Amino acid sequence: MSLVSTGVVIGVDVGGTNVLAGVVTPDGRVVSSVQQQTPHRNKHPRVVEDTIARAVRELSAERPALAVGVGAAGFVDTSGSTVAFSPHLSWRNEPLRAALETRLGVPVTVDNDANTTARAECRFGAGVGHAQVLCITLGTGIGGALVVDGAVFRGAHGMAGEFGHMQVVPGGRVCECGNRGCWEQYVSGNALARAAAATTGLAVVEAARAGEASAVELLAEAGAWLGTGLASLCAAFDPELIVVGGGLSQAGDLLLDPARAALLRNLTGRGYRPEPAVLPAALGVDAGLIGAADLARARLG
Amino acid sequence: MSLVSTGVVIGVDVGGTNVLAGVVTPDGRVVSSVQQQTPHRNKHPRVVEDTIARAVRELSAERPALAVGVGAAGFVDTSGSTVAFSPHLSWRNEPLRAALETRLGVPVTVDNDANTTARAECRFGAGVGHAQVLCITLGTGIGGALVVDGAVFRGAHGMAGEFGHMQVVPGGRVCECGNRGCWEQYVSGNALARAAAATTGLAVVEAARAGEASAVELLAEAGAWLGTGLASLCAAFDPELIVVGGGLSQAGDLLLDPARAALLRNLTGRGYRPEPAVLPAALGVDAGLIGAADLARARLG
Repeated sequence: MSLVSTGVVIGVDVGGTNVLAGVVTPDGRVVSSVQQQTPHRNKHPRVVEDTIARAVRELSAERPALAVGVGAAGFVDTSGSTVAFSPHLSWRNEPLRAALETRLGVPVTVDNDANTTARAECRFGAGVGHAQVLCITLGTGIGGALVVDGAVFRGAHGMAGEFGHMQVVPGGRVCECGNRGCWEQYVSGNALARAAAATTGLAVVEAARAGEASAVELLAEAGAWLGTGLASLCAAFDPELIVVGGGLSQAGDLLLDPARAALLRNLTGRGYRPEPAVLPAALGVDAGLIGAADLARARLG
Repeated sequence: MSLVSTGVVIGVDVGGTNVLAGVVTPDGRVVSSVQQQTPHRNKHPRVVEDTIARAVRELSAERPALAVGVGAAGFVDTSGSTVAFSPHLSWRNEPLRAALETRLGVPVTVDNDANTTARAECRFGAGVGHAQVLCITLGTGIGGALVVDGAVFRGAHGMAGEFGHMQVVPGGRVCECGNRGCWEQYVSGNALARAAAATTGLAVVEAARAGEASAVELLAEAGAWLGTGLASLCAAFDPELIVVGGGLSQAGDLLLDPARAALLRNLTGRGYRPEPAVLPAALGVDAGLIGAADLARARLG
């Protein structure tokens, strides 16, 4: 048996709150994984690289890594070399791919985390068989990707899909990106945590699942903002399907039912057009790392 | 000389206020044209067809029409058969193509008017040589089209690009589409006319060009709304170029300079990404009918 056939491909999802990494099979299954906290945004980018490298070393202790794919919560350039900007991390024109390849000694692929989520869902998950898919990831902020004819649309410079930074409230809440009124300030994990004075958005999700009425209400309110924004994105993109992933999507229908209702209430031309289904990511919170690994494997040829 | 080489191809742009029609050459020049008022939205669709048919008959009096292309201010289905919905006209699931072919006796092509504008600008105008272009038409309302790899992106059901009906103000101004706070309620010809208590948006543009201070201010305010919305669309699409057409684009830099300033002020990740240029449509108000004719000619084979 050759070395190639015994090596592994590792996917890493670097979000604003957690770094998830896993060994992923060619058919998109995660066979082992690790999770760590993302270093705070005021830390040097090297500290984030340390975290990624530690996760990769741990996952490649038994079988060597052939390639590593990284889905990063930031604006990644067309070539996949540089993270130009990240609202929730310290990356500013950061040459992440070169830095990681030097450290890890294997080919590294870098893409936006919502792009890798969309890739995974369209190849192995809720988007299979659909050509025009809108993918939203609800984590620390909101990530997004538009799938056009089965492939992630990257825009002119690789930075398309930053739906979370569309303005939905003029002069609204201050956003980590530097603007005001960004959509993610009304729906994301950060937004929920702030509204509930909780530590994380997931704490609110857990409280709601345990039946805590105020937490259920907060999810319904976030869901209404989600659905209203989705209605705007349907006006823009006319997708056949909307897939919602990211950590917050673990809220399930507590979030998605109010979102579906608000989407239908606000869809322009409603009654005269098909209404897109809103589905949770079939691969759950692993979608981002699965897509990152799949992209890295594809680049191996 | 064959009949084919002596016939003409006619493009028709059916907007919320005017119907523009013209004979268009293969290289996108308009050699003759007519303009009429669009019948009011409470009129039966047949009255709009009468207007289109009258314009086509007038333009084909000397040389027969080989094909007619229609750019329609409405949500046109993927097959180009039906206008599913129009905020500013009476079309509701209207089989426009079949109705016009029966009347005119020539092949008719129907597409959304902003889509035909984008086609014309990318083939003959400001978008030549660019692959990812965002096109906005400012007329009675706001139309839009996203050009992906040189072709208009239609979405799953043909209805993508309705940027004018994205919500920019929660609970904001009532829109003709039935929603509230739609972008076009803050930028379009209708919005300007309402703000100035004028008959049309173009009257405000003319007053501003004549130096009327209050009209200049209204255009600056509309321009700021335009630029803020464009910043959101840049977050979503990351275009290399933005082309602004439609009747209101005749305001030129009185509208576009405030828009450019607001775009740069609100662009997420600014300073760490290329900033797209905002250009007026090179083909002016004729772009919509030129693209419609060009599409009809292409379908002739």
